[in-house]
Amino acid sequence: MKKIGVVLSGCGVYDGSEIHEAVLTLLAIDRLGAEAVCMAPDMAFREVNHLTSQETGATRNTLVESARIARGKIRDIKEVSAAELDALIFPGGYGAAKNLCNFAEKGADATIHPEVARLIREIAGARKPIGAICIAPALIAATLGRDFRPKVTIGTDSGTAAAITGTGSEHVNCPVREFVVDRENKIVTTPAYMLANRISEAAEGIEKAVKAVIELA
Amino acid sequence: MKKIGVVLSGCGVYDGSEIHEAVLTLLAIDRLGAEAVCMAPDMAFREVNHLTSQETGATRNTLVESARIARGKIRDIKEVSAAELDALIFPGGYGAAKNLCNFAEKGADATIHPEVARLIREIAGARKPIGAICIAPALIAATLGRDFRPKVTIGTDSGTAAAITGTGSEHVNCPVREFVVDRENKIVTTPAYMLANRISEAAEGIEKAVKAVIELA
Repeated sequence: MKKIGVVLSGCGVYDGSEIHEAVLTLLAIDRLGAEAVCMAPDMAFREVNHLTSQETGATRNTLVESARIARGKIRDIKEVSAAELDALIFPGGYGAAKNLCNFAEKGADATIHPEVARLIREIAGARKPIGAICIAPALIAATLGRDFRPKVTIGTDSGTAAAITGTGSEHVNCPVREFVVDRENKIVTTPAYMLANRISEAAEGIEKAVKAVIELA
Repeated sequence: MKKIGVVLSGCGVYDGSEIHEAVLTLLAIDRLGAEAVCMAPDMAFREVNHLTSQETGATRNTLVESARIARGKIRDIKEVSAAELDALIFPGGYGAAKNLCNFAEKGADATIHPEVARLIREIAGARKPIGAICIAPALIAATLGRDFRPKVTIGTDSGTAAAITGTGSEHVNCPVREFVVDRENKIVTTPAYMLANRISEAAEGIEKAVKAVIELA
């Protein structure tokens, strides 16, 4: 059974992992006969009230909150190596651009959480596939852009696309129900809630992207 | 387009709505061409750390945390009437048995959050269907047992089944990928994570149950 790492960044679209995208990823992995290995970094992040979409001034912890999505079965990313995985997938949500890296603030000049960067580089170096959903392709672009020049999509937002191009990566526009494959680098991306107006739109792109990742693994 | 109320109770299996069940419910509603109307009561609940499954001593708010699952689009249940809905569905998680009522502590003698009880009674009185997932059928049993004697399932757990019987309701054992329909009372229930070992098992039962609810609506 193929083991697919799923990197979470909290629990909620405005300050962590986008919950629908994370759950739909776990469902697609299970339905395709693979095993999800959930993980997150152990770090503080700034809490956002999802009723008002305003920061509260308090902090929460990415590993503890991600455990909600993983039903308690989750590991600290620092303990996970590429050798034990067949692929790695990043659901979106602002957590991918604010917690796993600071792309939301710094764009092409983003710095990456060191353990997240370490695992992405190990996986890419081992020629194992990486999937990234919604805004998470920006994290992959910022981590691998200079060395691998990956081809990714975050949908059609021109400002985000320009920042991705600034990392040395290539951006390709893509509709919500589809996905983009960079076969050379084994990187699969889909826009999900960068474009989706309905959960079923996000689900269709995620199902196709997860299938492509597992086929490449 | 049929409007299906989805009553949430927080965000996380140990102190709120079971996240997978809630998302799979929203997906099934959308794929069946209906519209989900998310709601939750506005109340404090006791926070559980999902990494350790221990209470932290702090509280959170059900409406604010449920907004994470609903991506901010959620209403206070006290503002929702049965007249604007075609059906009502309750995902599971301990929140259904600790926040929406106190079945987890009191069993058959549970008291129900007054606005939750009011909406369940309005929906049942209007002969509109109710769906309940995982432990949430215990909430329906505790609310309607004496007056409607509903037939429900929470899977096969004999202790919980006995408490449901104690409310005046009937309990029927049911495997995880199936569901139970009480046609007289238009109540549809499925075990999901009361029995599921994999998300795809929960998904199959939930998809079938949501379809049955919408067909009855």
